[in-house]
Amino acid sequence: MPNRTVYFVSDGTGITAETFGNSIMAQFPGKPRHVRRPFVDTAEKAYEVCREINEMGEREGQRAIVFATLVNREVLAIVREHCRGKVLDMFGTFIEPLEEEFGVKSNHRVGRFSDVAKSQEYHDRIEAINFSLAHDDGQSARNLDAADVILVGVSRCGKTPTSLYLAMQHGIKAANYPLIPEDFERGKIPSSLAPHQRKCFGLTIDPDRLSQIRNERRPGSKYADLMNCRYEVNEAETMMKRAGISWLSSTHKSIEEIATTILNDIRPDRLIY
Amino acid sequence: MPNRTVYFVSDGTGITAETFGNSIMAQFPGKPRHVRRPFVDTAEKAYEVCREINEMGEREGQRAIVFATLVNREVLAIVREHCRGKVLDMFGTFIEPLEEEFGVKSNHRVGRFSDVAKSQEYHDRIEAINFSLAHDDGQSARNLDAADVILVGVSRCGKTPTSLYLAMQHGIKAANYPLIPEDFERGKIPSSLAPHQRKCFGLTIDPDRLSQIRNERRPGSKYADLMNCRYEVNEAETMMKRAGISWLSSTHKSIEEIATTILNDIRPDRLIY
Repeated sequence: MPNRTVYFVSDGTGITAETFGNSIMAQFPGKPRHVRRPFVDTAEKAYEVCREINEMGEREGQRAIVFATLVNREVLAIVREHCRGKVLDMFGTFIEPLEEEFGVKSNHRVGRFSDVAKSQEYHDRIEAINFSLAHDDGQSARNLDAADVILVGVSRCGKTPTSLYLAMQHGIKAANYPLIPEDFERGKIPSSLAPHQRKCFGLTIDPDRLSQIRNERRPGSKYADLMNCRYEVNEAETMMKRAGISWLSSTHKSIEEIATTILNDIRPDRLIY
Repeated sequence: MPNRTVYFVSDGTGITAETFGNSIMAQFPGKPRHVRRPFVDTAEKAYEVCREINEMGEREGQRAIVFATLVNREVLAIVREHCRGKVLDMFGTFIEPLEEEFGVKSNHRVGRFSDVAKSQEYHDRIEAINFSLAHDDGQSARNLDAADVILVGVSRCGKTPTSLYLAMQHGIKAANYPLIPEDFERGKIPSSLAPHQRKCFGLTIDPDRLSQIRNERRPGSKYADLMNCRYEVNEAETMMKRAGISWLSSTHKSIEEIATTILNDIRPDRLIY
């Protein structure tokens, strides 16, 4: 892709515009310059952002790409009329067919997050984040009854970021518990996990990758040594197999992919609401 | 909205489909049943999901709404031909006009997250999560030089979830530091923050709401008492004002909105890439 700037313009946070735009742009080669313009919710701000986008297009000799999620009709009208970028208008494109489908007008509410700060769903997400933090890295075995899932695996295989992502994005109470050399010597999973075995989900990782990650933390240590990583990963997998815990490898997966796979496996009922 | 089921169908994680679909559905009243179907990446799975959607439509007497992000052409063709839900096909709708705009064909890569697990950007996000965890709640004053932002405010005003969100979503190294009664008595911000004052961003909160949140944790305590909350909030705001730290109130805002506002304020250069 030649020299292009991509704008994410929204009258809300712009998170939807950005998620949507990034997914679409990932279908094309190259890495354009990204500019976020959230909270464009007045005529004045609309004219300002149009001016900025038009000037950018002139400077670069090619019009900018504009991913827009605009609910405010006045702002949308100004952008449609005055913006000389290539505007991809997500709401305009999809809301009209749905108004027809449902036989009702949309309410033009700005943002999926507006007014949510006091909703039960939001409250549950914040609670889930607090729970996951309090149960990070086996810090506490109290209250594991309340966990939706308990991630297990060797140190530095991706449990912590995955737990936090599950909590933040999906409101899942995700504890995580490390499997450490002492567990391998005893040959069984930590006793505090035993009553919760059916809620456990394992992460594993390629030993070479693990050694690389651990070396960033503690260079040259036994902890990071490749032979030791091979030993730990092998023991952990054997242990999980014996305990009937399903697992996946985090080596080539992002936390988003790991989280989606776990959700698909545990299918908490309340998520299919 | 009458009895409807909404499907999020994707050959990737479905996160884009869900963000996109939720934003659109928020424009309509009612709360439909949500069903996620990620990783639909073979003809077999495509037929299966179509059958499921069609059966649901028959059972409910109204066709389901289907938000699709399908890059796999074979899967997309099957869904287009066999799915009797109302399909809103995000990629089909927006990728074609961009292929024309750029004069190149899209690469039909599945998911924005594929192959990212080893990218620098992904590595930075994971590092930011680790940093934010290590610098949660003033745990460590070491290495604050490396912070992109330091959130300050009274206990339970929303610093922790906001820091983690900034790290996870935006790769921002966000430390957070509580302002506590001892700081108010001394009448100045914690000395470890002094060298980093320009990186500080404040959160405040309505004292009634704060008292409510703290009462969930420690019912009936002085910590949760309304008079005490009023005192702490007032002192914290005075202190931030004196130190020239900008702040916002988290009372009616979600962590997404707080994070976007902070980003807009601090504008780390590397985010406008």
